[in-house]
Amino acid sequence: MIPRYTRPEMAAIWSDANKYRIWYLIEAHATEKLAELGVVPASAAEAVWKAKDSEFSVARIDEIEAEVKHDVIAFLTHLAEFIGPDSRFVHQGLTSSDVLDTCLAVQLRDSADLLLAGLDRVLAALKTRAEEHKYTVCIGRSHGIHAEPTTMGLKFARFYAEFARNRERLVRAREEIATCAISGAVGTFANIDPRVEAHVAEQMGLSVEPVSTQVIPRDRHANYFAVLGLIASAIENLAIEVRHLQRSEVREAQEYFSKGQKGSSAMPHKRNPILTENLTGQARLVRSAVTPAMENVALWHERDISHSSVERGIGPDANVHLDFALHRTAGMIEKLIVHADRCRENLEAYGGIHNSQRILLALTQAGASREDSYRLVQRNGMKTWDEGGKLVDHLKADDEVTTLLSTEQIDACFDEAYHLKHVDTIFARVFAN
Amino acid sequence: MIPRYTRPEMAAIWSDANKYRIWYLIEAHATEKLAELGVVPASAAEAVWKAKDSEFSVARIDEIEAEVKHDVIAFLTHLAEFIGPDSRFVHQGLTSSDVLDTCLAVQLRDSADLLLAGLDRVLAALKTRAEEHKYTVCIGRSHGIHAEPTTMGLKFARFYAEFARNRERLVRAREEIATCAISGAVGTFANIDPRVEAHVAEQMGLSVEPVSTQVIPRDRHANYFAVLGLIASAIENLAIEVRHLQRSEVREAQEYFSKGQKGSSAMPHKRNPILTENLTGQARLVRSAVTPAMENVALWHERDISHSSVERGIGPDANVHLDFALHRTAGMIEKLIVHADRCRENLEAYGGIHNSQRILLALTQAGASREDSYRLVQRNGMKTWDEGGKLVDHLKADDEVTTLLSTEQIDACFDEAYHLKHVDTIFARVFAN
Amino acid sequence: MIPRYTRPEMAAIWSDANKYRIWYLIEAHATEKLAELGVVPASAAEAVWKAKDSEFSVARIDEIEAEVKHDVIAFLTHLAEFIGPDSRFVHQGLTSSDVLDTCLAVQLRDSADLLLAGLDRVLAALKTRAEEHKYTVCIGRSHGIHAEPTTMGLKFARFYAEFARNRERLVRAREEIATCAISGAVGTFANIDPRVEAHVAEQMGLSVEPVSTQVIPRDRHANYFAVLGLIASAIENLAIEVRHLQRSEVREAQEYFSKGQKGSSAMPHKRNPILTENLTGQARLVRSAVTPAMENVALWHERDISHSSVERGIGPDANVHLDFALHRTAGMIEKLIVHADRCRENLEAYGGIHNSQRILLALTQAGASREDSYRLVQRNGMKTWDEGGKLVDHLKADDEVTTLLSTEQIDACFDEAYHLKHVDTIFARVFAN
Amino acid sequence: MIPRYTRPEMAAIWSDANKYRIWYLIEAHATEKLAELGVVPASAAEAVWKAKDSEFSVARIDEIEAEVKHDVIAFLTHLAEFIGPDSRFVHQGLTSSDVLDTCLAVQLRDSADLLLAGLDRVLAALKTRAEEHKYTVCIGRSHGIHAEPTTMGLKFARFYAEFARNRERLVRAREEIATCAISGAVGTFANIDPRVEAHVAEQMGLSVEPVSTQVIPRDRHANYFAVLGLIASAIENLAIEVRHLQRSEVREAQEYFSKGQKGSSAMPHKRNPILTENLTGQARLVRSAVTPAMENVALWHERDISHSSVERGIGPDANVHLDFALHRTAGMIEKLIVHADRCRENLEAYGGIHNSQRILLALTQAGASREDSYRLVQRNGMKTWDEGGKLVDHLKADDEVTTLLSTEQIDACFDEAYHLKHVDTIFARVFAN
Repeated sequence: MIPRYTRPEMAAIWSDANKYRIWYLIEAHATEKLAELGVVPASAAEAVWKAKDSEFSVARIDEIEAEVKHDVIAFLTHLAEFIGPDSRFVHQGLTSSDVLDTCLAVQLRDSADLLLAGLDRVLAALKTRAEEHKYTVCIGRSHGIHAEPTTMGLKFARFYAEFARNRERLVRAREEIATCAISGAVGTFANIDPRVEAHVAEQMGLSVEPVSTQVIPRDRHANYFAVLGLIASAIENLAIEVRHLQRSEVREAQEYFSKGQKGSSAMPHKRNPILTENLTGQARLVRSAVTPAMENVALWHERDISHSSVERGIGPDANVHLDFALHRTAGMIEKLIVHADRCRENLEAYGGIHNSQRILLALTQAGASREDSYRLVQRNGMKTWDEGGKLVDHLKADDEVTTLLSTEQIDACFDEAYHLKHVDTIFARVFAN
Repeated sequence: MIPRYTRPEMAAIWSDANKYRIWYLIEAHATEKLAELGVVPASAAEAVWKAKDSEFSVARIDEIEAEVKHDVIAFLTHLAEFIGPDSRFVHQGLTSSDVLDTCLAVQLRDSADLLLAGLDRVLAALKTRAEEHKYTVCIGRSHGIHAEPTTMGLKFARFYAEFARNRERLVRAREEIATCAISGAVGTFANIDPRVEAHVAEQMGLSVEPVSTQVIPRDRHANYFAVLGLIASAIENLAIEVRHLQRSEVREAQEYFSKGQKGSSAMPHKRNPILTENLTGQARLVRSAVTPAMENVALWHERDISHSSVERGIGPDANVHLDFALHRTAGMIEKLIVHADRCRENLEAYGGIHNSQRILLALTQAGASREDSYRLVQRNGMKTWDEGGKLVDHLKADDEVTTLLSTEQIDACFDEAYHLKHVDTIFARVFAN
Repeated sequence: MIPRYTRPEMAAIWSDANKYRIWYLIEAHATEKLAELGVVPASAAEAVWKAKDSEFSVARIDEIEAEVKHDVIAFLTHLAEFIGPDSRFVHQGLTSSDVLDTCLAVQLRDSADLLLAGLDRVLAALKTRAEEHKYTVCIGRSHGIHAEPTTMGLKFARFYAEFARNRERLVRAREEIATCAISGAVGTFANIDPRVEAHVAEQMGLSVEPVSTQVIPRDRHANYFAVLGLIASAIENLAIEVRHLQRSEVREAQEYFSKGQKGSSAMPHKRNPILTENLTGQARLVRSAVTPAMENVALWHERDISHSSVERGIGPDANVHLDFALHRTAGMIEKLIVHADRCRENLEAYGGIHNSQRILLALTQAGASREDSYRLVQRNGMKTWDEGGKLVDHLKADDEVTTLLSTEQIDACFDEAYHLKHVDTIFARVFAN
Repeated sequence: MIPRYTRPEMAAIWSDANKYRIWYLIEAHATEKLAELGVVPASAAEAVWKAKDSEFSVARIDEIEAEVKHDVIAFLTHLAEFIGPDSRFVHQGLTSSDVLDTCLAVQLRDSADLLLAGLDRVLAALKTRAEEHKYTVCIGRSHGIHAEPTTMGLKFARFYAEFARNRERLVRAREEIATCAISGAVGTFANIDPRVEAHVAEQMGLSVEPVSTQVIPRDRHANYFAVLGLIASAIENLAIEVRHLQRSEVREAQEYFSKGQKGSSAMPHKRNPILTENLTGQARLVRSAVTPAMENVALWHERDISHSSVERGIGPDANVHLDFALHRTAGMIEKLIVHADRCRENLEAYGGIHNSQRILLALTQAGASREDSYRLVQRNGMKTWDEGGKLVDHLKADDEVTTLLSTEQIDACFDEAYHLKHVDTIFARVFAN
C-alpha cells in the first residue's frame, strides 16, 4: 500500500484490526453452531459472543505471534484473555486455514463491493460526459492518423461499454470468490461437521466451498486478480486516450487544473496530464498481480503455503491501488475540460481528406472500377495532404473525377451529418440498460 | 505452433485457408445484405455467392500481398479473379478491420468450442476416476508433510471442480468474444448501414458489437486469454499433483507407460512422469499470453495496429497448445495407474500420527486445557516421528494421557471411517449437476 | 515462428536439420575423445566421422521417434544406419541432456550472434541519422506537452545509447549461455570422463559448465531471455517515438512509403506508421518469454523436463521475432523521413513559451524571489497559451517584468543557440567509442 | 512493504526521511558547484550547507505538498524555511527530475549494496554446508525419480554457483543503475552547466548519464529489476529443493524448528517447511516487478511520468522483499538439518537400480549391442522395481547377463566410489575463486 494511492475505506478492509474482527466472527459463529450441535457446551458460545464488542489488541497479538510464530494461535491466545477457560472450546475441529481463507474471502468480497462502487462512479461520469458531448464532432484517428469524423460522445460511450463489461466480470468474480471453507486439515470434515461450515457461510454472507483441501482453491483468487488486471487495462486505455487528447498539438481535452496547482517547477506554463500518466503506471502495477496469482494455483497436494506471502502483497496492494485508480479516473472524467472548438480546428486541418472513403464509394457507384476510384481518390487525397487546399476543390479541378461526378455530388460527399446519422443507434445500444 | 503440440482440428481453425474462407463468407453475407438494401446491384450478390465452392489460393494471395502490402486488398484482388467485374461492389463501405476482426471472433469462438470439448473430456475422465477411487484411502498432505487421511477420489473430485469452474468461465469468455463489427473506418457506420452488420452477425452466429471503432475492443480478447491462462494453471495444478504422486518415494500413481516406450537412454528402469512435466511447461507457455493480451487493450484513439502482431502469435499458439494440453491431460488421467496398496503403505508409514488432531479434540473434551492437550499430543507425536512405533501405543504409555482417556477412547481415535464419513457429502456437492 | 516475421538465417538455426547436425557434432567430438582415452575403440571415432557429410533424414528420425518416443534415441538409431555396428560406442556414458542442452547452448549462442548483427545494423542507422540531424531543432516534450527545444539528432542519440547498452548486455548473456555440459545422468561424471566435456566444449566453441545436474542450470537461459525482453523494450521505446512523430498533428517524421504500397483500403490518403505499430506488438511478444523463462529456473531436484516444452516455444519464437524486429527497426530508421520544416513549425506554434524556464532564471538573477519570478512567468506563459501572441511581447508589456529586465535582456532569453550549446558534449559522450 | 518481510536497513533506504536527505545533498552539491562557477553567489552555497544537520520534517513537507501538489517544490519550500532568502538560488537551472532520478539512482545503488551483502551471506552459508556435506551421499533424482548417486554437497555447490552468477549480474546492474542526471528540462543542459552534473555525480558516488531527457533512461531500471527477478528465481529454485527434501516420504533435510515454535494448530507433530514455502511465494512477488519495469521503458517523447507510480510500488517492494528473502534463505541454509542416515536409506531403497547405466556400459563393453544391453538392463531393472530384491542379484540370476559379465564384473558395477570420483573436480571448479 502506497499511502498516497490509498483510500481509507479500502485500507480499512485490509487492516489488521478488520482481519481480527473477521476471524473473531468466524470463530464465534462456528462455536455457536458447535454448541447447537452439542459438540461444545452452550456456555462456550455465550462466552465467545460476550467478547463481541471487545477491542482486540493488534500489538498484543503481534507480541504473542513473535513467540509462537503462528498467527492464528496468537489470536486465539489473545481471545482467551477475554473469554477465559471456555476459550478451549473455540476453534474446536477447525484448522487455521479455515479461518484464514474464509477471512480472505470476506476481504476480497468486500473489496469487490468497494471496487464496484468505484466502477459505478466511473460509469456514471462516462455516461454524463457521453451525453453532454454526443454531438461534439472531432476527427477519429486510426494509427494516429486522421481518419473519419466521430464525436467525443462516442469516445466516452466506448469506454463506458468497456467498463460496463468489466463491471459484469467483477460481479461474477465477486460471486466466485465469496466462499466459505470450514472443512478441517485436508478438507474431509473429519473433525468438524459440515453444518458448521454451512452456518458460518450463511452468517458471513458467503456460499459454501464445494470441495476444499484445507485451503480454498486458488483458481478463484487467480480469476479475481485477472479481472482486476482487465479493469486496470481499461483504465490504461482511457488514460492513454486523454493523454493523447491533451498533447500540445492536439489539445482537444485537458485535465482540470486547480488554481493553486503548480505544473512544473521549471516551466510554469505547462498543464501536464499527470493524473492520466499516473493512472497509466497504476494500471501496470495492478496488472502485475495477475501472473503471481496464477502461479499460486498449483499448490502441492492438499496445500502448501507459498500462496500466502504472495497474497499478503497483492491482496491489499492490487485492491487498494485499483480502488484509488477508479476514483481518480472518475474524478478526472467528471472534471475533464473538452475543447470543442479545438476539435473542430483539428477536424478541418487537412482539407477534408477524411471524406475520401465517401468519395471512393460515390465514384464506384458512378461506374468507376474499384481500382480507378481508388487511384482518383488517392491522387487528390495526397495532393491535399502535400500541397494543402481543400479536397473538395482538388476534386472539382480533376477532369477524370468531374466526368463521373457533378459538382453537387462532390459537395454532397462533404456533408458532416452523413457521419453522425447513426450516433443515436450506437448510444441506444450502449446505454440500453 | 509447435508441430508436436498441435492437433489438426485446432490447426485447421488457424490455417490461412480457413481464414480466407471466413473472410469470403463475411464479404458474401455483407454483399447480400447490401444488395437487399439496394446499395449494390442484386447481380453482385449473386456473383459473389457463385464463388462459394471455389478454392482460394493462399499462394496467389501471398503473391499479391507481397506487392500491395495489404492482406485484405490482396484477398479482394484474388476474389475478383473469380467474380469478375461485379467484384467492385464487394467490400463496399467496409473497412479491412471489419473483416479481420469479425474473422478473428469466429476463429476464437470456434477455438473455444474445441477447448470446451477438450475440457469435457478432462471432466469426464476426472469424474470416472473420482468415482472409481472414491474410497481409495491415502494420506492427505499439507506442506508436503503427512496430515490426515483423504481419498484419491477426493483428489480427482477437486480437480473436477476446478475444471468445471474453468468450463463456465470459458463458456462466458466464448460468448463475450463472439461479436461482429461491420461499422466502418471509425465505427460510425458512415458508409455502411448497421443492418449489414446485423445480417452478417446473424449469419455467422455472432452477436453485434455495441460500439466498435474500426476494431472490436480488445478487452474481450484479453478476457479470453486470461481464461486460457486460468485453464493452463488448472492443468499445472493437476500435473504437479501427479508428478508428486509418481516420485520414487511416493509411488501412489504413475503415468501409463506403453510397452515400446523408452524412459531414458541412460537409465532403462526409469518410468518418468514426462507427460505431466511436459504439461507443466505447456501451462507456462499458455499463461505467457495473458500479459501481452492485456497490453493490447490500450490502443491509440480509434485504433492502432500494435495488437495485430501479438495476435498472430498468441492467437494460434495459446489455443493450439491449450487444446493439445487438454487432450494430453485427459489421456493421462484416463490411463493413470493408481497404486492403492502403496497409498495404504504411505498412510501407515508414520505410526498413525495423522490422527493427532483427533486426539487433541478428545483430550480437550476430556477436560484438558487447549494448551495441555496440545502439549501432550505434540510430545507423543514427536516421539513417534523421532523414535518410530505407533502413536496409539505411545499414548497408552503416557500417564498424563491415560488419566484423561481410557484405552477404548484412545483406540477410537484411530478409526479410519471417521475420516471418510463426509466423502459422500463432498461428492454430492461436486457432481450435483 | 510466424512466417512473415521470420528471416531465413535465424530460422536455419532453429531448424531440425541444424539441430541434428549439432547433435552429430557433439556425439562425434565426444566419441573422438573417448577413443583417445581408450574407452572406445579408435575405429568407432573413425566410423562416426565418416558420417560427417551425410544428410540426416528428419523424416526418418520422426518415424523412429513415433515408435520409441524419445528423440535422442531416435537420432542415434538413425545415425547407426550410417555408421553400422560401431554405433554402439557412440553416446557411451552420455545422457540425452548432455546432447540436448549443449545443442541448445550452441543454438542460443548462434542466435545471439545474429541478434548482435541486427543490433549493429540498428546502431549504425541510429548513428548516421543522429549525425545527419544533429542540429535539426525540434521541440522537446515532457508529458506530451511542449517543454524546451532539443534536436532530432539527440533523439536518435539517446536511442543509440540505449541500444548500445543492450548490446553490451547481450554480449554478456551470450557468453553466459555458451556452456557445454557432458556430465552424465546427475552431473557427477560417473560414467564419463570430464576430459570429454572439455574436448567437446573446446571444439564447439563453448566453455565448460562448472556444475551441471544432467541439465545446464536454467538461470543462464532466463538471463538470456530477460536481455531479449530489454532489447524488445528498447524497440518499443523507439517505435512509440516514431509513432508520435508521425501523428497527423505532429508530422515531424514519417515511415518511408513505397510507391506501390496501399495504406488503407478505405482511406487512400493515409500514410500509417504500420512498421512501428507492428514493432510495438512484436516487443510485447518477445517480452512475454521473460516470465516463463524465469519460471523454468526452479526444476525439481537434479532436473525435471518441464522447461523443455517452454523452450520449444520461446527458444525459436523469441529469437526469430526479435531478429526480424531488429532488421525491421534498422530499415525503418535508415529510411525514416524527417520533416525539419514541420519540426520548426511545431517549435514556434506556442509563442515561445518553451523559453519560460530561462526567463525564470533571468528574473531570479535580476533579484526577484523565486516565488515572484515563478508568478510572473506563469502569468505571461498562461496568457500566451490562452490568448496567443508571443511570450516575448507579453513580457515586454508586463510592467512588473520590465522593472526587472531590459528589452535586450528579455530578447536574449529567446536565443535558440542557448539550447544547443551542449549538443556537442552529449554527442561526444554517446559516440565516444 | 509488508512489515513482516521488511528489514530495517532496507526500509531506511526507502524512507521519506532518507529520500529528503538525498534530495538535500543533491541540491547542496549542485548549489556549491553553481557558486564555484559564479552562477549563484558564494553565500548561497554556504547557506545551503548550514542546513546540513537540520532535521527536515516529513510532516511539514506533506502539508506543503497537499497545497502545491508537487513534491520537489514542497521540499524546496520547506528547505527555504531553514536557509532563508538565499534559498532562491537553490535548484537554479535544475528540473525536478534531476533531483528525483538521481535520488532514485542512489537508493537503488544502496539497495544493491544491501542485496550484495545478503547474497554474500547466502553464498557463505552454501559454501560452508557444501564443504560439510561434500561426501554425504544421496540419490540424485531426475523427473522426481531415482537416478544415480550424488552428494548433498553437490546440491549446495550448484546453488552456490547459481547465486554466484547472480551476484555478478547484480554487481553489473548496480553499476548500470548508479548514474546521475542534472541536465534540465529535456536533457540539453540549456540552463545548467554539465560541470554541475559532473560534480554532483562525483560527490554522490555516481557516474554521469551520457544522455538523459529530463529522465534517466528506464532500461537501466528494467535491467535492475530483471536481475532481481533472476535472484528471486534462484531463491525459488533452492526453496523447492528443500521443500522436496523435507517431504514426509523423503526427509533428507529439514528446516530448523525452534523449541517454542508451533507447526500447526491442528497437527502438533508437523514440522512444515514454512520458511521455504514462504520464500517460494516471495520469489513470485519479487518477480512480478520485472514486467512493469520493462513496460516503463517506453516513455513518450522526452519523458512522461507513468513510470513514477510503478516505481513507488516496485522500488521499495521488490528490494525490501528480496532483501528479506535473502536473509531468510541464508538463515535457513545455515541451520538446515541434513539427515545423512535418511539419505542413505533412500539411496538403497530400490535395490541398487541407480547403477543400471553402469551395467549398460559394462554390457556394451563386453560386446553386447546397445539394443541388447538396454533390453537386459531394462528387464532386470523393472524386475527389481516391481518385485523388490537387489538388482545385483537379479543380474547374477540372468543367464543372458552372466554369459557376458562375470560375478566380479557385476559386483564392480555397484561400487559407490565410482560415482564420487569427480566430486573434487566439480568443487574445484565452483569454489575456485
